[in-house]
Amino acid sequence: MAPGPTPVPPEVLAAGAQPVLHHRGPDFRALMLRCLARLREVCRTQNDVLLFTASGSGAFESAVANLLSPGDRVLAVSAGEFGDRWAALAAAYGADVQDLRYAWGETPRPEDVRSRVEETGAEVVFLVHCETSTGVVADVQALAQAARAAGALTVVDAVSSLGAVPLETDVWGLDVVVAGSQKALMTPPGLSLVTVSPAAWERGARATSPRFYFDWQRLLASLGTGTTPFTPAVSLVAALDAALRMLLEEGLDAAFARHAALGRACREGAKAMGLELFSPDEERSAVVTAILTPEGVDARELVLALRERFGITVAGGHGDLGPRMFRIGHIGYYDVFDVTTALAAVEVLLAESGVDVERGAAVARALEAYREAARV
Amino acid sequence: MAPGPTPVPPEVLAAGAQPVLHHRGPDFRALMLRCLARLREVCRTQNDVLLFTASGSGAFESAVANLLSPGDRVLAVSAGEFGDRWAALAAAYGADVQDLRYAWGETPRPEDVRSRVEETGAEVVFLVHCETSTGVVADVQALAQAARAAGALTVVDAVSSLGAVPLETDVWGLDVVVAGSQKALMTPPGLSLVTVSPAAWERGARATSPRFYFDWQRLLASLGTGTTPFTPAVSLVAALDAALRMLLEEGLDAAFARHAALGRACREGAKAMGLELFSPDEERSAVVTAILTPEGVDARELVLALRERFGITVAGGHGDLGPRMFRIGHIGYYDVFDVTTALAAVEVLLAESGVDVERGAAVARALEAYREAARV
Repeated sequence: MAPGPTPVPPEVLAAGAQPVLHHRGPDFRALMLRCLARLREVCRTQNDVLLFTASGSGAFESAVANLLSPGDRVLAVSAGEFGDRWAALAAAYGADVQDLRYAWGETPRPEDVRSRVEETGAEVVFLVHCETSTGVVADVQALAQAARAAGALTVVDAVSSLGAVPLETDVWGLDVVVAGSQKALMTPPGLSLVTVSPAAWERGARATSPRFYFDWQRLLASLGTGTTPFTPAVSLVAALDAALRMLLEEGLDAAFARHAALGRACREGAKAMGLELFSPDEERSAVVTAILTPEGVDARELVLALRERFGITVAGGHGDLGPRMFRIGHIGYYDVFDVTTALAAVEVLLAESGVDVERGAAVARALEAYREAARV
Repeated sequence: MAPGPTPVPPEVLAAGAQPVLHHRGPDFRALMLRCLARLREVCRTQNDVLLFTASGSGAFESAVANLLSPGDRVLAVSAGEFGDRWAALAAAYGADVQDLRYAWGETPRPEDVRSRVEETGAEVVFLVHCETSTGVVADVQALAQAARAAGALTVVDAVSSLGAVPLETDVWGLDVVVAGSQKALMTPPGLSLVTVSPAAWERGARATSPRFYFDWQRLLASLGTGTTPFTPAVSLVAALDAALRMLLEEGLDAAFARHAALGRACREGAKAMGLELFSPDEERSAVVTAILTPEGVDARELVLALRERFGITVAGGHGDLGPRMFRIGHIGYYDVFDVTTALAAVEVLLAESGVDVERGAAVARALEAYREAARV
């Protein structure tokens, strides 16, 4: 129940355990082309979708290497760990990285993006859709619009959000969207993707950063015929294809509604236990819920005890927030009883630590909130 | 029966189909540390082993990005597709790439390496252990010795050779060895590795090429405690660990002897059918056998018919060799009856094409040659 890697459906694990196809053969080509078509549907885009054998960070690096030349001015919008990571990545490629930095847990504001782009002349803006370290889901539509109005391209980290909360690549005019297989796409980690708009292709043609494995042009030339320039993680592609079929059968809008209801259930349950939320208590917080432990309860010990006593994996807090924060993911192959399981286990441990919690209240409230949300 | 991805044992597929572990949890840490220890054993090295979620080309790129600064002079030894690929990769990073080029199918010579390094002042030499496009296995020990004697570091592409033919990282003084999961390591594709010698670390500390996902220092800092800076392909690591256990239980020397015998069986069988070998007919050709079709038989049609009629995947030839060459891999989870299956199917199709082949001779001779080789 950590915010990724997330639970993988048995059908998807089984698809990944089939004998490995040869990546230059016709069976794999058909699989890859179908998988790419499904990814375009999930990303809601007509742009090219490129699939990498790499973590999400690798796909993000591809955006930096393909869009930037040393010295290019970019703006990194950061309100948590992943925003910081993309700033460090762009700096590693010699970009002139300007930042728009918020305290962890804050929600980036479109007017700040616009004024920082105008002030700095940044040509590319890096945005995080769901900042997994804090649970904040940004209003990427508004942020991207602000960046575009000020003349910049947008690169959006949608690693933990794609398939969980609405993302409209084309309607929102997102130039590059980066995502990974191991979150709402319900697949083991190891694959990641980018979508590339015509404007991003144009910029890419001029960018001089060195790239080979992550070179978009090289990848596009192969993917068009269903193959790849380098041996891909064939079994993960088979797994991803099976997971995308499940997601599209459920329907994207239904999946978004389910995630919104799960987030609501988790937040309401935590509050019913008397816990303080770190994630914003709002509709968009549908991916991961960051919660603070009561005074005197070490979150790191709580996370460890959940695993050792009950076999439940939740995530701790990053950096300074480690002693107080734990995070319950509700992404992908998930239903409300997973949320109530996590909450019930937390309740047991808090009660044992001497915290005054009303037993059963969290689960009851979570189920009620889920039902209310599902009715809407 | 293509030279990679190779057949994956059911136990390994099953290990990869287990529920996905959280990559920051203690279970995964133990798995990763055990896997790295086994990789060191397979590479026969005390050097650091770094594991990437990427194809072999990604790990190779890490060597270029971590060892080179723009303008550095390197020597790429090339006698086939993969040698050419590494030259292109180094050039993409702005290296001053000198080459030592042989016709496809030739075997690189140590004296040529030494004189080219002395002549050019190359600081790093890129070598290919098994050139999968031709089946030639180079004498990497002698080539590396020649490079070292002339003052250069060595980077060895062992993607298709590691675990199939002898490779002694430390005894042979190889600075960087690159390998992938999908060949003799009997794992689905998606993981790759490098070994890094102290001299390579030292050079890496001075190299200015941009890198982030493939940065060795960043990876080493995490791997020491069994985790990774970026979400790894957890299920592939579990699969690789299971495969390495099988390989080490068989014993590396036994696996090398088996591959040598398989190569011998394949070559003898092909010759008994009257076919001409493209790969050298020698002991080291133990990874993949490249064979020429008789005059008038299109190898591309043969490869297609093998798949469509019998469900057997072999590889075609690259580039100009496409119309005449096919390649039978005998790497990893393989025994002599896999070789005889491939040969028998080829025989059927050749006979149907009107080629005058003695029926049954190839299989009989392959089995006999295997028995002879196994007795040695």
